[in-house]
Amino acid sequence: MKRKNIALLGSTGSIGTSALDVITRYPERFNVCAIAAAASVDSMLAQIKSFAPSLACLADPAAADELRRRLPPDCRTEVVAGEQGLLRAATMPEADVVLAAIAGSAGLQPTFAALRSGKDVALANKESLVMAGELMMAQARRSGCRIIPVDSEHSAVFQVLNGEDTAHISSIILTASGGPFLNTSLEDLQRVTPAEALRHPRWNMGSKVTIDSASLMNKGLEVIEARWLFGIEPDRIKVVVHPQSIVHSMVAFVDGTVLAQLSQPDMRGPIAYAFSFPGRLESIMQPLDLIALGELSFVAPDTRRFPSLNLAFRALRQGALMPAVMNAANEIAVENFLAGKLPFPAMPVLIEKVMDTFSAECAPLSMERVLEGIRWARTRARELLDNGMGIDRG
Amino acid sequence: MKRKNIALLGSTGSIGTSALDVITRYPERFNVCAIAAAASVDSMLAQIKSFAPSLACLADPAAADELRRRLPPDCRTEVVAGEQGLLRAATMPEADVVLAAIAGSAGLQPTFAALRSGKDVALANKESLVMAGELMMAQARRSGCRIIPVDSEHSAVFQVLNGEDTAHISSIILTASGGPFLNTSLEDLQRVTPAEALRHPRWNMGSKVTIDSASLMNKGLEVIEARWLFGIEPDRIKVVVHPQSIVHSMVAFVDGTVLAQLSQPDMRGPIAYAFSFPGRLESIMQPLDLIALGELSFVAPDTRRFPSLNLAFRALRQGALMPAVMNAANEIAVENFLAGKLPFPAMPVLIEKVMDTFSAECAPLSMERVLEGIRWARTRARELLDNGMGIDRG
Repeated sequence: MKRKNIALLGSTGSIGTSALDVITRYPERFNVCAIAAAASVDSMLAQIKSFAPSLACLADPAAADELRRRLPPDCRTEVVAGEQGLLRAATMPEADVVLAAIAGSAGLQPTFAALRSGKDVALANKESLVMAGELMMAQARRSGCRIIPVDSEHSAVFQVLNGEDTAHISSIILTASGGPFLNTSLEDLQRVTPAEALRHPRWNMGSKVTIDSASLMNKGLEVIEARWLFGIEPDRIKVVVHPQSIVHSMVAFVDGTVLAQLSQPDMRGPIAYAFSFPGRLESIMQPLDLIALGELSFVAPDTRRFPSLNLAFRALRQGALMPAVMNAANEIAVENFLAGKLPFPAMPVLIEKVMDTFSAECAPLSMERVLEGIRWARTRARELLDNGMGIDRG
Repeated sequence: MKRKNIALLGSTGSIGTSALDVITRYPERFNVCAIAAAASVDSMLAQIKSFAPSLACLADPAAADELRRRLPPDCRTEVVAGEQGLLRAATMPEADVVLAAIAGSAGLQPTFAALRSGKDVALANKESLVMAGELMMAQARRSGCRIIPVDSEHSAVFQVLNGEDTAHISSIILTASGGPFLNTSLEDLQRVTPAEALRHPRWNMGSKVTIDSASLMNKGLEVIEARWLFGIEPDRIKVVVHPQSIVHSMVAFVDGTVLAQLSQPDMRGPIAYAFSFPGRLESIMQPLDLIALGELSFVAPDTRRFPSLNLAFRALRQGALMPAVMNAANEIAVENFLAGKLPFPAMPVLIEKVMDTFSAECAPLSMERVLEGIRWARTRARELLDNGMGIDRG
């Protein structure tokens, strides 16, 4: 069997390193043809030594220069830099699958480029679908390529839907761990610190997604992602809090049946599935012992304490650029929370204010307009922050 | 779309009436071409009026005579009787699907006949596979027809495996409600009455299967059924007690993923799925509300209090006629427990004694040998009971 060539965009992050762990265990099935990251020279150097990709990209040009200098003279890996370098990694001819794992807005254009060049995309960058879901899905259809989700929730839905007729879906039920503040009062939320928010009870992830997970904005982004990935109306996407993070998501069918995917919370599961679909690789995760677990519980999300989830539903219903605007405002909100400049409950307040002042035009959607919307929202959020406008600082 | 013609063997029982409920709601999809039952003239008369099958069979000839006399003169339904009548109902040329829902050993030969005549079988009579699984599966392969399970557990596994490669199965995890005596001490089990055993906390079923459910023998029979239905070795079939009866069973895959099927405990779900496979019919069961349920729990089965489960694994490992012998001995045990002649914990003692004294021959399996084994086991069980041999009567 020919090895699958995999290009890893975001190779030094949490998803990227888990992906390399999967690849390391299946050298006869996968080959790394490209890696790309932001600026981590040391990690990049180690990955080049281990996986000998033909291309390595660091977004930061100075870091790329340093990497070039530190490579052994006989190294055949070409080092590229910047946005152009990233696009080369996303579209290289020999790649069979592109893992889109660059977090946030930065992942948008390379993901789109990968789809345009006809690559199957293993999608960890949920923001791509949040900001430009309609465009991404249309591009995938035009290119005849697949988007296979790497988010554990969407991978669960994707696995469950394998073999099912999507016409029989009644609803998609995304599970949420509830994050570190599941049982924290609204009053106490005013005082939680970034360090506390970064202590996720179940998943070890990057800081942006960990904060989003604590605010339920992550689940909101996933609702939008699910809407595009599975072509389902917002009203048929449900969220249920499941603190054990064992049931990764479910699909309810018209007959009253629910199919669920369960596993240890381990990102290597969905990553390996995206790489090996429709196959399954052996011993990727620890087996599940339901008797040892004893109990799986389900509670309703509290949108009074975590209003971001409702903001996402609102953005999705308003459509067009609103999800991109919401996502960009959230990025600024999270940055400011992490910098200690914004209380936890002020994040959704800021995001809502940005959304309230955005007036959508009716021009047809395009990637240019999405990027404009994002720039507008980032500027608007910063203005609001600078003016302390109506943001309750506890 | 042509309506599917369905022959219902066991039309007046719990499964049969649920099946007719499904058919009533989808008259444009299903037609009842034959019904068969043991001796219930009144129910049969009502079913003939409602569904106008071309054939109706009552196993009891006197009951069939009474039914004939009571039919309106213009009724076009032909009434037949006895074993030959049952075989006609099981094999009638116009039937597309035969629902095999005659409980116990009595269902064996009509089910086999349906497969021999090339009918797809919706299988509720688990004893067919327990007693003659190897022969049944071989016959289905030869005839090129499908066996679609109607037991909720096996339907769950069947649904989960749809779209999956069975080579990726790690284990099949059957759930058990635990029955009414989940938390009854061994001492108290000595004194439980048939009435108490018949009060199943989740499912409303016939008396034989309800007692089997209380003793975990039902799960044992289902283990054997799963072995044949899914072609999986006994060691890879697990049982977990799940008192809420919401997760109907699961499949664990080699990568560590578990897929599960959940729904209200409602037999119309698996019945409708077997009839409509690979489609799904709308609004068969009440939707599942996991938030209202709150919690799903899982505990290990207690084979000290419920040794029948281990007897089934033993019978399966010994193979050949042993599962048929065990099943026949269990039928006698349940009869005697229901008649107040045998304490609850004495059932597995009797079954084990029958199994211990059975010496398997090495002749090739055949339906004749299976029937001989069954006769031998029934006789042997009755002898043991008559002699009070080693049966602890508390």
